Amino acid sequence: MKSYVVGIDMGGTNTAFGIVDSRGNVLAKDSIRTNTHQSINHYIEELYNSLTALIAAQGLTGEIGGIGVGAPNANYFTGVIENAANLPWKGVVPFASLMEKQFGIPVKITNDANAAAIGEMTYGAARGVKDFIMITLGTGVGSGIVANGQLIYGNDGNAGELGHVIVRPNGRLCGCGRKGCLETYTSATGVAHTAREFLELQKADSLLRRIPMQEITSKDVYDAAIVGDKLSVEIFEYTGKILGEAFANFIAFSSPKMIVLFGGLTHAGDLILKPIKKAMEENLLRVFKGKVELVLSQLNEADAAILGASALGWEAAQ
Amino acid sequence: MKSYVVGIDMGGTNTAFGIVDSRGNVLAKDSIRTNTHQSINHYIEELYNSLTALIAAQGLTGEIGGIGVGAPNANYFTGVIENAANLPWKGVVPFASLMEKQFGIPVKITNDANAAAIGEMTYGAARGVKDFIMITLGTGVGSGIVANGQLIYGNDGNAGELGHVIVRPNGRLCGCGRKGCLETYTSATGVAHTAREFLELQKADSLLRRIPMQEITSKDVYDAAIVGDKLSVEIFEYTGKILGEAFANFIAFSSPKMIVLFGGLTHAGDLILKPIKKAMEENLLRVFKGKVELVLSQLNEADAAILGASALGWEAAQ
Repeated sequence: MKSYVVGIDMGGTNTAFGIVDSRGNVLAKDSIRTNTHQSINHYIEELYNSLTALIAAQGLTGEIGGIGVGAPNANYFTGVIENAANLPWKGVVPFASLMEKQFGIPVKITNDANAAAIGEMTYGAARGVKDFIMITLGTGVGSGIVANGQLIYGNDGNAGELGHVIVRPNGRLCGCGRKGCLETYTSATGVAHTAREFLELQKADSLLRRIPMQEITSKDVYDAAIVGDKLSVEIFEYTGKILGEAFANFIAFSSPKMIVLFGGLTHAGDLILKPIKKAMEENLLRVFKGKVELVLSQLNEADAAILGASALGWEAAQ
Repeated sequence: MKSYVVGIDMGGTNTAFGIVDSRGNVLAKDSIRTNTHQSINHYIEELYNSLTALIAAQGLTGEIGGIGVGAPNANYFTGVIENAANLPWKGVVPFASLMEKQFGIPVKITNDANAAAIGEMTYGAARGVKDFIMITLGTGVGSGIVANGQLIYGNDGNAGELGHVIVRPNGRLCGCGRKGCLETYTSATGVAHTAREFLELQKADSLLRRIPMQEITSKDVYDAAIVGDKLSVEIFEYTGKILGEAFANFIAFSSPKMIVLFGGLTHAGDLILKPIKKAMEENLLRVFKGKVELVLSQLNEADAAILGASALGWEAAQ
């Protein structure tokens, strides 16, 4: 088997890619724009040119065994990207087969959160762990579920949509068109939403009142919370409580050894981790109490998405 | 490999057991009392005597390859039964090893709902299905989850406690000590509870008012509903709605091909199935809509528990 793989992290704006060895070292990386390519063929062509140059510069031409891709709405089973709201290509794109044709290398794709879970299992906090749940807390909330040492894709490749578990019936309107999804409360966007709600409904003074209401971000809430702003601390407590309650239900499903957290919101550290842990333990069925670890991703954040995708490259290479 | 297995269904009152062939035929069955045995050794001794006689009567002495047991709080990994509230033996009982010592045949144990899932996969509605969720609606609500063709036991053997997913924060008090568990609304007991609540809170006339409030059972609600009692129909609609909402969340977790329903409450047929299906579809993330089958168990109810346990016997026999 060849000794290197490529991981590609496709986002709505940029696509980052890197060459990775079997120990999870990113030997070289680069990126191209995603959203400037209205044609999928042009996008793949630019990707091919940039990636081929990167591989050649490392003297690794012919040494790449597989390519793994993490992308929005990517289906592991079919290799297609379907109706991705944040990508320029509408409808059904047979991405894996187009890539294989261009590169002549086996390609596997899955969504970003599944890629993160595989990355964590291959190189990170979940090495050797057969049952865990990966939760990504970013602009949205994603998840990847591993049971019996395998990622759960489900019947149609869409398993692990835990950001869209309804936690508050008739709650906040979600981008998916339904109401009360976990994501509407616990994504970075959800935290900013909570901030606006708290500021409107409560009289308390807060550093956040210095920022125009519609411009408040989760980063602002964090900045205020770490200098002791009470309202901002409460926003994280509220967010953590909803996450902890949801985690207690997830645990009743698959009884994981650990829940691994990743993404921007985890930078808040104990401000969010403590309320999560508290609400999780309070809501757990007795048989699970005190047994499930809550851990942070051990992947270097700058490389995590590439690493996650690259882990799937090893699977493609087999 | 030997051609027959034994399935044992241990309940709090009775223990039923049967000899099963590879096509799922129950060749012979019998039962003993569970709750008359304060000593686990005496219980196993009686089980041994009865079962050995049954096997001998079929001319199958020496032909049994494995024994599978479905029992409350049984742990597949450790083979122990731990703190089962409804069994006479307290603390930790190393049931599988005690049984193997007595019988000289490999023994595997798991809880009843997991056994039901394996039974359905081996002989029933889920033959050949790699991703499904089994939900048992009886005195309690149990579940067994199959993903990638394997039962999910989780890190400690306790996965699939979907009866104890909290669906109504601060809702009804559950036997587990927490509030708002699915089981408190959608078990047979939960339906009777709903009936009492509806009768108290609503003025509407109902056939149920002829029964002393504390004696109403889910069977009474069914009997009234099929002759058109409006309040009773609403009780099933309410129950089905909560189940359907919960199923929509379960589907976001493991993306099953089907949900298989089993247990007394399913006798209500469309009275409960239609509201489940409606609420499930309404609450599903778009990518899952119209894709997940809701089916009834195909195991003969009288033999289902024995068949489920026996399916684990094949695993023990390997």
